[in-house]
Amino acid sequence: MDGNNIYKKIELTGSSDQGVEAAIANAIERASQTIRNMRWFEVIDLRGHIENGRVAHYQVTIKVGFTLEGGAKAPQETRI
Amino acid sequence: MDGNNIYKKIELTGSSDQGVEAAIANAIERASQTIRNMRWFEVIDLRGHIENGRVAHYQVTIKVGFTLEGGAKAPQETRI
Amino acid sequence: MDGNNIYKKIELTGSSDQGVEAAIANAIERASQTIRNMRWFEVIDLRGHIENGRVAHYQVTIKVGFTLEGGAKAPQETRI
Amino acid sequence: MDGNNIYKKIELTGSSDQGVEAAIANAIERASQTIRNMRWFEVIDLRGHIENGRVAHYQVTIKVGFTLEGGAKAPQETRI
Amino acid sequence: MDGNNIYKKIELTGSSDQGVEAAIANAIERASQTIRNMRWFEVIDLRGHIENGRVAHYQVTIKVGFTLEGGAKAPQETRI
Amino acid sequence: MDGNNIYKKIELTGSSDQGVEAAIANAIERASQTIRNMRWFEVIDLRGHIENGRVAHYQVTIKVGFTLEGGAKAPQETRI
Amino acid sequence: MDGNNIYKKIELTGSSDQGVEAAIANAIERASQTIRNMRWFEVIDLRGHIENGRVAHYQVTIKVGFTLEGGAKAPQETRI
Amino acid sequence: MDGNNIYKKIELTGSSDQGVEAAIANAIERASQTIRNMRWFEVIDLRGHIENGRVAHYQVTIKVGFTLEGGAKAPQETRI
Amino acid sequence: MDGNNIYKKIELTGSSDQGVEAAIANAIERASQTIRNMRWFEVIDLRGHIENGRVAHYQVTIKVGFTLEGGAKAPQETRI
Amino acid sequence: MDGNNIYKKIELTGSSDQGVEAAIANAIERASQTIRNMRWFEVIDLRGHIENGRVAHYQVTIKVGFTLEGGAKAPQETRI
Amino acid sequence: MDGNNIYKKIELTGSSDQGVEAAIANAIERASQTIRNMRWFEVIDLRGHIENGRVAHYQVTIKVGFTLEGGAKAPQETRI
Amino acid sequence: MDGNNIYKKIELTGSSDQGVEAAIANAIERASQTIRNMRWFEVIDLRGHIENGRVAHYQVTIKVGFTLEGGAKAPQETRI
Repeated sequence: MDGNNIYKKIELTGSSDQGVEAAIANAIERASQTIRNMRWFEVIDLRGHIENGRVAHYQVTIKVGFTLEGGAKAPQETRI
Repeated sequence: MDGNNIYKKIELTGSSDQGVEAAIANAIERASQTIRNMRWFEVIDLRGHIENGRVAHYQVTIKVGFTLEGGAKAPQETRI
Repeated sequence: MDGNNIYKKIELTGSSDQGVEAAIANAIERASQTIRNMRWFEVIDLRGHIENGRVAHYQVTIKVGFTLEGGAKAPQETRI
Repeated sequence: MDGNNIYKKIELTGSSDQGVEAAIANAIERASQTIRNMRWFEVIDLRGHIENGRVAHYQVTIKVGFTLEGGAKAPQETRI
Repeated sequence: MDGNNIYKKIELTGSSDQGVEAAIANAIERASQTIRNMRWFEVIDLRGHIENGRVAHYQVTIKVGFTLEGGAKAPQETRI
Repeated sequence: MDGNNIYKKIELTGSSDQGVEAAIANAIERASQTIRNMRWFEVIDLRGHIENGRVAHYQVTIKVGFTLEGGAKAPQETRI
Repeated sequence: MDGNNIYKKIELTGSSDQGVEAAIANAIERASQTIRNMRWFEVIDLRGHIENGRVAHYQVTIKVGFTLEGGAKAPQETRI
Repeated sequence: MDGNNIYKKIELTGSSDQGVEAAIANAIERASQTIRNMRWFEVIDLRGHIENGRVAHYQVTIKVGFTLEGGAKAPQETRI
Repeated sequence: MDGNNIYKKIELTGSSDQGVEAAIANAIERASQTIRNMRWFEVIDLRGHIENGRVAHYQVTIKVGFTLEGGAKAPQETRI
Repeated sequence: MDGNNIYKKIELTGSSDQGVEAAIANAIERASQTIRNMRWFEVIDLRGHIENGRVAHYQVTIKVGFTLEGGAKAPQETRI
Repeated sequence: MDGNNIYKKIELTGSSDQGVEAAIANAIERASQTIRNMRWFEVIDLRGHIENGRVAHYQVTIKVGFTLEGGAKAPQETRI
Repeated sequence: MDGNNIYKKIELTGSSDQGVEAAIANAIERASQTIRNMRWFEVIDLRGHIENGRVAHYQVTIKVGFTLEGGAKAPQETRI
């Protein structure tokens, strides 16, 4: 984060049966379809589902911070 | 939440003079006008206003989680 | 907040080399380009960057609450 | 809350065998006997007693905020 | 709680489509099948599921405290 | 706490060079000069002062809950 | 805080359109009309109101700690 | 979690020298020996031991939620 | 805690009119009647009851961690 | 923070009678005498002392993060 | 804490089989070998080890605050 | 942790583009250059940087606990 920017943070939950890092990656990949300029993420919850006595998938909730461009130029992040 | 989805969570505050459940319902009803695929809510703050020594209305702040569809198909949640 | 409204809260981080209040003002000014009806803010994180042994700029993360208008009339807040 | 006032917050626990809203109402009704100008409440704890395998009563702890009048005119809130 | 007892607390989640109090009651009713001497509950999480844009049911997670009898006499709470 | 009462909680800090329990006792003893009907306390902070490399005294901050009597009969707790 | 005193803490919210420090000062100035021996404050919430896309005023909630004098001599803090 | 069930949550700590996911899996595998119907887990603490300047093993504390069957049919979860 | 074990944590509240350490000891002594292999405790709440203006007894809530033996050999912890 | 560095965080409390920003600056200025490569700070506590019914000085506790250089080259941060 | 000083806080864990106060004293005594000017401590965690069904020792984690002297004169606190 | 030792905890942030465990390992490896007797770590923050819509590196903040040797023998941990 540098000193001239304004950031917005949104909250996403990603899932994966591969592990914690893959669940984070899935959430960020999906967000990248509609948000430019993502800068950082913060993990705020880590959980998962159990089926038949085993972990079926991990669920990681993250906050994602991204730079806000000027008001007239920023319509692209509205979809997520 | 199942293992193949990505979710977004937004934060809403609903009000009602009827009680806690009605305040939650009002927030979700309003959100349903522009968000499809809402899955769950989490209460994060419960408060209210007092007028003339009585509760005038309850205010309940919730996080609402909803499924993100594919990037090209998800324009409808942009309004809230 | 009055009893008839539904509010949404979003999370923003503003920066300033002038101080805490200026960082808050910068975040709200940027948000006002695309959001009408902002009502209040809550400071949730206060930090900053250091360069050459001095504070280079403050970064203040706030939640901003704004009134949701009727679904058909609320497209303007989608840009932030 | 408007910009010209100073508020004090006190912490009360109300009880009811009817439910959460009734426990809040009981605490505020009692407080209204000695405090004027109550403005809002915040729920900070929600619990209850169990007797014979059933909820006997709910106990809700709230913070109540009220406007402080000028020092010379504010003796009435001293009783609670 | 009186001064001569030892208590154990367990964590339960109850559900109901009727409201918060009913979800608490359902959890305690189920627990009462196998635990004697329940004394109090504490709400630690309040959430719910949404279907078709409406609250489908509330989910309330509570801690339940109960008196431990002497070791030789306390087999009945083992089932929950 | 029984089901028919309303409670108020106040926050006190007691000190002692004897230990944690003595610091709690000092706060409650002082409060008992002006408050009747104290029922319970909750420790919310535990700290102390160091002088010459040793603990000089312990400081324990507690919340004290007491029963509110009827409005007309409760002037005695106003002094603390 | 020294080792021979008992302290009480109360919770106040001060407002100012000038900034954070001014809001704190306003709360303490008002409290000084009825409380002697205030020793310290702790900021526990920092928020504000927005009007017309700008900060209208800051609201700072503080806990204020003050020395309790002997029971017979302490009637002056009862007014806040 | 669906709307007709009551859940119990227990707290377990699993260890592994392989990583975070393996420590979770070890805890759940052990629990599956005596608990049927486990549904989800929540990570509440993540730590580990260091030996000779390296991570010797990870320790992950989780809450595990499982469906309670009817009182007469639920003796199997009593062993953990 | 060593790297080869799985632990379970339970939550207990012990009481004593002697002090904090005695309340902890009472809870652990009672637990030792039915649980083998207890390894550590963590204090999560410290409170007490007041009668006649004095502390009547302390109540300390702890989490107790114990080693889980193999599933077939672990029936003894089921009673608490 | 970039991806190739290791950081250490230390906790400092700075004071000033001028305001929050000045108290932060005083702590960082003192730290800069013995620590190179400070990168950011996080405010974790904000309080102050009151004398004669006015704020005497503000006290701000911050965490300061700085880059660790190679072990052989980093003796200078040992003094704080 | 007075208004002209800068403080550093460090985190220590002390142990004792005698009780909570003794564990605090042991940590501070050890710290006094290398740190001058310690002013206060804050308890942030209270736990202990159990052996053979009894408390073997208490472990208390504290933050210790001490005055930083001028940069040129402060080498003595570097050893802890 | 055994009953005869005093521990100090420091706070470090490690980075890695490989994952959470690698970021922890990097922080501990760097610390091992100047600290002997590290015993455990606790994860207190988990976040990361995003570049071009992908996770560029993970950042894990940990507390590391290590045994303090006698004052005269402990100069080696002063460099971190």
